[in-house]
Amino acid sequence: MKVWLALVHHPVVDRQGEVITTAVTNLDVHDIARSARTYDLAGYFIVTPIEAQRLLVERILSHWRDGAGARRVPERSEALGRVTIVSSLEEAAAHVEAAAGESPLTVVTSARVSRATTGYRALTAELETRPGLLVFGTGHGLAGSVMAAADRVLAPIQPGASYNHLSVRAAVAITLDRLFGHFD
Amino acid sequence: MKVWLALVHHPVVDRQGEVITTAVTNLDVHDIARSARTYDLAGYFIVTPIEAQRLLVERILSHWRDGAGARRVPERSEALGRVTIVSSLEEAAAHVEAAAGESPLTVVTSARVSRATTGYRALTAELETRPGLLVFGTGHGLAGSVMAAADRVLAPIQPGASYNHLSVRAAVAITLDRLFGHFD
Repeated sequence: MKVWLALVHHPVVDRQGEVITTAVTNLDVHDIARSARTYDLAGYFIVTPIEAQRLLVERILSHWRDGAGARRVPERSEALGRVTIVSSLEEAAAHVEAAAGESPLTVVTSARVSRATTGYRALTAELETRPGLLVFGTGHGLAGSVMAAADRVLAPIQPGASYNHLSVRAAVAITLDRLFGHFD
Repeated sequence: MKVWLALVHHPVVDRQGEVITTAVTNLDVHDIARSARTYDLAGYFIVTPIEAQRLLVERILSHWRDGAGARRVPERSEALGRVTIVSSLEEAAAHVEAAAGESPLTVVTSARVSRATTGYRALTAELETRPGLLVFGTGHGLAGSVMAAADRVLAPIQPGASYNHLSVRAAVAITLDRLFGHFD
């Protein structure tokens, strides 16, 4: 499958809607890598403009890919093998274009609807015809500039719910299952 | 909806299949509480026989329910309001019976199939007729004794996948969405 995922730490917004840069958390690296590998995505980009954070993630990855972690928990090594750290969403898209031979359909996700959205089944069908980059925001969600520039806005997970504050780890898992999971 | 969720820290198994007790992690408390609240479950039990761990979780909960956390992040307070710490799965089932007026259908989950399993759509229909307790294991999964004693074993999430090591946080989110989510 030619679908990639990006977890964005900038530009995202805080509770007040101000554009911020969030810190990379170790658990987002692991949990989302495992979900992405389970649904056989081609790759998972961690996006942060902060060089010190990129170096930190590289150190975590090297522990699990080649170090003591890889020997102790080989399936973790396998999941983290598809993780790439980049400094911007544009860099992630360039990686996808280099790997897939064409620019990806960029798909943003949000708990709040702003533009016309695409349903899950329609997106699954569209992703069979061209490579895709699924973009998730940390903090209180992707900045308006990222939302506006995307090719598609995926429908919110529970638009009518009285409570709509899933963790990004849960939102990624549910989204991948809706797009690529099968069950009775 | 009369459905509860339990996250079990004992009895579960380790990589070698030995029965162990895992440590409660702060993130499992938060992430799963948010997922349970999003899908409007009646409650979320954290099961551990270790008293010091129960006290630790109570302290985390009180920070977010009544303390500084509740003022700063009110939606977190709302999710954690449905969390109860218990010492055993039997105690969780007794709580459900007291609240619902009848004993719950106990449903276990596993990445590995051992007995005949129930599909998601069939379970959704059954849970409309009686209260349910969805049971998830930490570590490498629920002990055989818990699996054997349950009323139903839910089908694994990705039975045919080449990689099947979702985090319990992701597995809970996907399971709740398959049972109670709606999307196009």
